[in-house]
Amino acid sequence: MHEEVLERIRERRWKPGDAIPREDELAREFGCARGTVNRALRALAEAGILDRRRRAGTRVALHPGGKATLDIPIIRREVEARGQTYSYALKIREDAVPPSAIREAMGLRRDDPTQRVLSVHSADGRPLAIEDRWINLAIVPMAAKADFTRISANEWLVTHASYTHGDIAFSAQAASDAEAALLHIDPCVPVFVIDRTTWYKADAVTTVRLTYAPGYRIHTRL
Amino acid sequence: MHEEVLERIRERRWKPGDAIPREDELAREFGCARGTVNRALRALAEAGILDRRRRAGTRVALHPGGKATLDIPIIRREVEARGQTYSYALKIREDAVPPSAIREAMGLRRDDPTQRVLSVHSADGRPLAIEDRWINLAIVPMAAKADFTRISANEWLVTHASYTHGDIAFSAQAASDAEAALLHIDPCVPVFVIDRTTWYKADAVTTVRLTYAPGYRIHTRL
Repeated sequence: MHEEVLERIRERRWKPGDAIPREDELAREFGCARGTVNRALRALAEAGILDRRRRAGTRVALHPGGKATLDIPIIRREVEARGQTYSYALKIREDAVPPSAIREAMGLRRDDPTQRVLSVHSADGRPLAIEDRWINLAIVPMAAKADFTRISANEWLVTHASYTHGDIAFSAQAASDAEAALLHIDPCVPVFVIDRTTWYKADAVTTVRLTYAPGYRIHTRL
Repeated sequence: MHEEVLERIRERRWKPGDAIPREDELAREFGCARGTVNRALRALAEAGILDRRRRAGTRVALHPGGKATLDIPIIRREVEARGQTYSYALKIREDAVPPSAIREAMGLRRDDPTQRVLSVHSADGRPLAIEDRWINLAIVPMAAKADFTRISANEWLVTHASYTHGDIAFSAQAASDAEAALLHIDPCVPVFVIDRTTWYKADAVTTVRLTYAPGYRIHTRL
């Protein structure tokens, strides 16, 4: 039964998104008990092959392979959760026009008020991550008065600015000369990078590149 | 109101996981309308600062910063979804004893039957990812008979093996000589790596290292 259902999906007789027949219909077709059908479909749903919804019935899953949920913690909390001592240093803070790639990602014009905040987060005195951030002051005007020498922009924004959604990308990059100097590593060493832009409805709130020291891993569960 | 709540959380008078007072109590304490309190708490819950549950009441969130959901697609589907042509080549398939780090990650002994399957997934003829995988044949005996020259182990397992949970880690690594040769890149170039072990209850089903060609990014939404 299990095998037969997989065969139909692999042969694309049942395509991703298609509703499959009801359990009683399948039981009749395969000449087996409805309980057998139910068990097979449940196992396939657990494996992410089928998508079972109370009202919409059972469909072939659009994205088999599973889903993972990632927590995006404040960096200070992440460090403290590992039992390490957190510290933080503000390196650059200036009202400036972002480079065109950043303006494009945030949907901003040259004359929109933006502030750049670049800082380094450390764990047990060793640099852990560079936070290179642009803040849209039209959406978060209070940020202009925040004391980023005492609280990181990362933490200030999480606790002060609302957002409706965000885009995140993870990648591996070679450390630039400037990044290498801030992280106390050699240039070109592989570093883990998180690019994140958060939005409040149609307006970008902030965009940040987090560049992590070698050895950093993101863990999650499937 | 919003500010006052944030202040208490920052000063840790209300700590992560703590239940906060009921809306009517807060309204009385702050001398404001209950609607004002409700709006402030709702905004803070949206921002991930507070955790509101119907029965358990409102608590300070354990992990503010938000959650992202990652789809883990079959590699073939991911390539085809970008409109590219997928191809796949099996490089190594052997019954072998995994190195101790793999045995430890999978909780296996030296004499547990395991199979190694190493293959390269390509998009438009260019290597995209190396799949270096170990399969626990005690849990998925059918894998011994699968034709991995025709279907990748990645896709075969998603459609044939059930799992209950998995661990995933993302990191940036320098390509080894062997990886560089398979990906047609220079050694030491930064590559994005996904390490994943999937489990069926207490037994490891499979563990895989996916090493992606330079330029690969994982995108998701917050």
